[in-house]
Amino acid sequence: MIRHIAMLTLKPDAPDTAVQSLEEGLSLLGQTITEIAAYTYGSDLGLRDGNYDFAVVADFENDEDFKIYADHPDHQAFIQDRVAPILEKRVSVQFEI
Amino acid sequence: MIRHIAMLTLKPDAPDTAVQSLEEGLSLLGQTITEIAAYTYGSDLGLRDGNYDFAVVADFENDEDFKIYADHPDHQAFIQDRVAPILEKRVSVQFEI
Repeated sequence: MIRHIAMLTLKPDAPDTAVQSLEEGLSLLGQTITEIAAYTYGSDLGLRDGNYDFAVVADFENDEDFKIYADHPDHQAFIQDRVAPILEKRVSVQFEI
Repeated sequence: MIRHIAMLTLKPDAPDTAVQSLEEGLSLLGQTITEIAAYTYGSDLGLRDGNYDFAVVADFENDEDFKIYADHPDHQAFIQDRVAPILEKRVSVQFEI
């Protein structure tokens, strides 16, 4: 299986509703993109200084399913509508589990 | 539960054995630190440009167990001996699952 991780930092001027918007959007993606085998996400808990603000961990049966997710129109719309306006930095890794 | 994620990039001059060393060290931590509820890690698969090189996802029952892991002498020795010499950048997030 493939584990995909993405971490974000939010722009300093991101609205207070930014995290709620991300979580709503991800919840919708989890319901509509059937290739997602497991999906967790959430805001950083503030346990350590210097952390990023938000993370997503998504598991897929194989890299083909990951690519379907990454390129899915609903995912692309999520990025454009809910991520891009509030995004400062993004990093990601995909590894085998 | 707490999901802890860390992503690393390796120094350009990191030896070819760096990833193997990380995986060996993490395997040992997984055997000795009983507070780890689930532990996955691995090298980036190269599916996307601009990714970090390596990631760890570790799950804990609560933030107290995460802190025991983070401060554990074996974990600290792992960071000092196997991570610090080859580390370029590190980012992390802890979120609730």
